Amino acid sequence: MHASIQEIIESRVSANNYDSSRKLSEATISELVRLATLAPSAYNFQNWKFLAVVSDEAKLRLQAAAFNQQKISDAAVSFIICGTLNAHAQLEPALRPSVDAGIIDSKTLATWVGMAEQSHIGNALLQRDEALRSASLAAMTLMLAAQGMGLASCPLSGFDADAVSREFDLHTSEIPVMLVTVGYAAAGNWPQKLRKPVQEVMQVV
Amino acid sequence: MHASIQEIIESRVSANNYDSSRKLSEATISELVRLATLAPSAYNFQNWKFLAVVSDEAKLRLQAAAFNQQKISDAAVSFIICGTLNAHAQLEPALRPSVDAGIIDSKTLATWVGMAEQSHIGNALLQRDEALRSASLAAMTLMLAAQGMGLASCPLSGFDADAVSREFDLHTSEIPVMLVTVGYAAAGNWPQKLRKPVQEVMQVV
Repeated sequence: MHASIQEIIESRVSANNYDSSRKLSEATISELVRLATLAPSAYNFQNWKFLAVVSDEAKLRLQAAAFNQQKISDAAVSFIICGTLNAHAQLEPALRPSVDAGIIDSKTLATWVGMAEQSHIGNALLQRDEALRSASLAAMTLMLAAQGMGLASCPLSGFDADAVSREFDLHTSEIPVMLVTVGYAAAGNWPQKLRKPVQEVMQVV
Repeated sequence: MHASIQEIIESRVSANNYDSSRKLSEATISELVRLATLAPSAYNFQNWKFLAVVSDEAKLRLQAAAFNQQKISDAAVSFIICGTLNAHAQLEPALRPSVDAGIIDSKTLATWVGMAEQSHIGNALLQRDEALRSASLAAMTLMLAAQGMGLASCPLSGFDADAVSREFDLHTSEIPVMLVTVGYAAAGNWPQKLRKPVQEVMQVV
């Protein structure tokens, strides 16, 4: 009997403590990324890239670029989730399989590529925003998928993006948007922190 | 018997067609927002705001600011999900209930407020990035929660942010990051569009 999505959302915490003796198979890591890529992105850009940092050596380099947060090494895997710029230039190949499968037609493909080019070419802020949106949507999907597998996770936006890019040879078009640690929880994690009442953040119009 | 998180992620599609005759209660809309706010945010900033656009009049104004996409009016609710700037200035009250509940201690609160002030004050790009991250994490959580309730959803980043801000009296610190339509699906929605193979977007290091 698996948990409902409500239970998964309610039970997810941002975990600082991981059982560093428990690793994850590459099959599990791939499955987490596969599920993350089922997140939506504008035009189905899929403008993301996932570095799964699993070796002790690479974890230490990532940790050094992220205010030395120990959970990066303790977690079984620390993902660097990137959003990519110039997504419009890769839209045709990103959509081609959906055309071949009969999900969208060629005319839609051409229309979308034209629309994406029109709005994205020369618009650095929109490209960056779209990279942040896509990577964040994928990161959230990955964390909830992990929770459903009985794994703990934590998103980190506190890191030196330039250092991460340099250490992990990211292309200038690849923006490291979020780190996400995933592994088996150890004792001592906080309960989920409290949230503002809904009426403070919601307005019905 | 409810669906697993994997099934929810795999079955979610970006829906264009909604049964416009089926509404959602304000309780259901509030529950969607409550679950969305259980998404993580840096320091538990909770730097987001949700406008639930449900009236015909407001939907038409939103639709006009979003390339006249019909699904905005057809869906039972179209959310404007905003991320907010200057999150550091609101961190103390955002964390106070977690201190009062004994989840984090006063020293942690003071440390986090100091860290957030140090990194965010005067850093407009980081503030904007954090607004995009938080709103996107919440949006993804909301869409998966909706899917778990048997509802269809669609994220939209194609809209005129200035027009949305003007029409809905958003404060200059409130950035409309994403629109999300939610309602009961009508016939004719696309299947989930295909994704790139995992090995094309993942690298293990």
